[in-house]
Amino acid sequence: MHAFETLSEKFSAQFNRSHFPAEPSSLYQPNEYFLKLGGKRVRPVLCLMGNELFGEIESDAWHVSNAIELFHNFTLIHDDIMDKAPLRRGLQTLHTKYGESTALLAGDVMLVVAFDYLNHIGTQFIHRIIRIFNQTAMKVCEGQQLDMDFEKRNEVGLDEYIEMIGLKTSVMLAGSLQMGAILGCAGERNQHLLYEFGRKLGLAFQVQDDYLDAFGDPGKFGKQVGGDIISNKKTFLQIHAWEVADSSQKEELLFLSQNNDPAKVERTLQLYHDCGADEWTCRLKDKYLDEALAHLEDIAVVSKRKEPLKELAHYLVQRQS
Amino acid sequence: MHAFETLSEKFSAQFNRSHFPAEPSSLYQPNEYFLKLGGKRVRPVLCLMGNELFGEIESDAWHVSNAIELFHNFTLIHDDIMDKAPLRRGLQTLHTKYGESTALLAGDVMLVVAFDYLNHIGTQFIHRIIRIFNQTAMKVCEGQQLDMDFEKRNEVGLDEYIEMIGLKTSVMLAGSLQMGAILGCAGERNQHLLYEFGRKLGLAFQVQDDYLDAFGDPGKFGKQVGGDIISNKKTFLQIHAWEVADSSQKEELLFLSQNNDPAKVERTLQLYHDCGADEWTCRLKDKYLDEALAHLEDIAVVSKRKEPLKELAHYLVQRQS
Repeated sequence: MHAFETLSEKFSAQFNRSHFPAEPSSLYQPNEYFLKLGGKRVRPVLCLMGNELFGEIESDAWHVSNAIELFHNFTLIHDDIMDKAPLRRGLQTLHTKYGESTALLAGDVMLVVAFDYLNHIGTQFIHRIIRIFNQTAMKVCEGQQLDMDFEKRNEVGLDEYIEMIGLKTSVMLAGSLQMGAILGCAGERNQHLLYEFGRKLGLAFQVQDDYLDAFGDPGKFGKQVGGDIISNKKTFLQIHAWEVADSSQKEELLFLSQNNDPAKVERTLQLYHDCGADEWTCRLKDKYLDEALAHLEDIAVVSKRKEPLKELAHYLVQRQS
Repeated sequence: MHAFETLSEKFSAQFNRSHFPAEPSSLYQPNEYFLKLGGKRVRPVLCLMGNELFGEIESDAWHVSNAIELFHNFTLIHDDIMDKAPLRRGLQTLHTKYGESTALLAGDVMLVVAFDYLNHIGTQFIHRIIRIFNQTAMKVCEGQQLDMDFEKRNEVGLDEYIEMIGLKTSVMLAGSLQMGAILGCAGERNQHLLYEFGRKLGLAFQVQDDYLDAFGDPGKFGKQVGGDIISNKKTFLQIHAWEVADSSQKEELLFLSQNNDPAKVERTLQLYHDCGADEWTCRLKDKYLDEALAHLEDIAVVSKRKEPLKELAHYLVQRQS
């Protein structure tokens, strides 16, 4: 039984190496650059933790974890192209540094290498793991498409937003845990409960993400604070504020979203606060966290084995960066 | 034993249906659109033919063929974005019709669905097939990157060009045949010979492609004749002409490539002809075809079983569209 930090270090120790051939370097060097940008490695470690909840970590779990982390980086590379994002973890995004065509292709080949890690899984589990992996991968793409669709709309309902976040963020956390559980020979019921734990945790995670993007400490938060407001992204804050705003507040929110006022971020934040959106997101986050933990509680393994996941859940929703 | 046309019809009969969920339609409808543009389905049928060379067609071969065709379409969607191509088979490319972001994502999800077909392969073959599939997929990406690298250079050697074409075009033909052979329980030597047949056939195929793009009959050829010349693509014709041109011809070739002369295509074609590049490509194509057929000849199965592949090889290098 290991804590998240320990497994994260173990994971990085074997992941932080080259995953690509040397040539052509015009294709693979960009991939190496991107992977060196790092990250929290939450998803692959969730797979390891999902596995360890039910027993010793299987060697297959490392292959699946590598596949998950490469898949996640593939989505980041392509999302950055679609979002025209200049920076990732404070450094140039792949397309900014190497051009869009190379970034597109580097993402493609990273996905192929991710699939190749799955081909190391033994006969007993390969079909089940690839099925969950692919289902998850498709949902992540669907979530990204919905996210882009929403950017073109003035109004998005909370239910629709939760559905999109569920696809874009939650399923990968949930799926990573479930794949670990499968390798740990967990039964269907335990798999399902762990999946639901991950899904709710993903929602709580996203609430915190949206909150930090608006109200985070610029010194701690890795990205530009107010980035979502500047690019008119739908967020939990934006959707709640829009739902409860009175007509003059609505008018101002609409005006701010349609114009590049220099005080756009500041004024939008004030409106979010006036609408109580900041407090509301804190309550919503706690609700999702409680629901996640209730699912974890129900899993039929001794409580002690659940401690690392419980700790991680608390950390992820309280993080400041 | 079936001829290419028969297998192509059989393949299309089971392939021409929806491969995607209905929702979100903003993501999956573009995929359906693109697949309806059709195509010769050469690669998936090569897998079926590679399989039938050694016995009855296995049910797994259909799954692999579907994966191959979806992979091929994924590469076309992304290549069209990179090449900024407006048309594909006379109709709008995906990014022209639906925007680049959706095209990028539609390609991504098509690759995932391709991998999902591979997950239908039985335990006996799944690891070997996925290994070849992924090796092939990576090489195709490498070939596309080299192709883009070459566009930025004035001079590309014939050897480099052949290496690039080998990756971008030949390996997929060769790999498709090999995957079929594996499912037919072919031995290593037969697999290797069939792979080499496919590789040389791919080179002959590309020679014909380059020739048709320049000297094809506009009434029969599906794309814009002279397209490669207009976009300064490296081709067998361009590389040979550059190699044998005298200094004044070289000067004119360079001038034409750097300027948008209205007579660019016409004058370049005249130079290719003056340099004997058109005749040279016909001889080169025959050389590759002969080499391909010699490999086919060496495969240890009765000649009769090789007839459909032999016929297909002749057809592919003589085709006018």
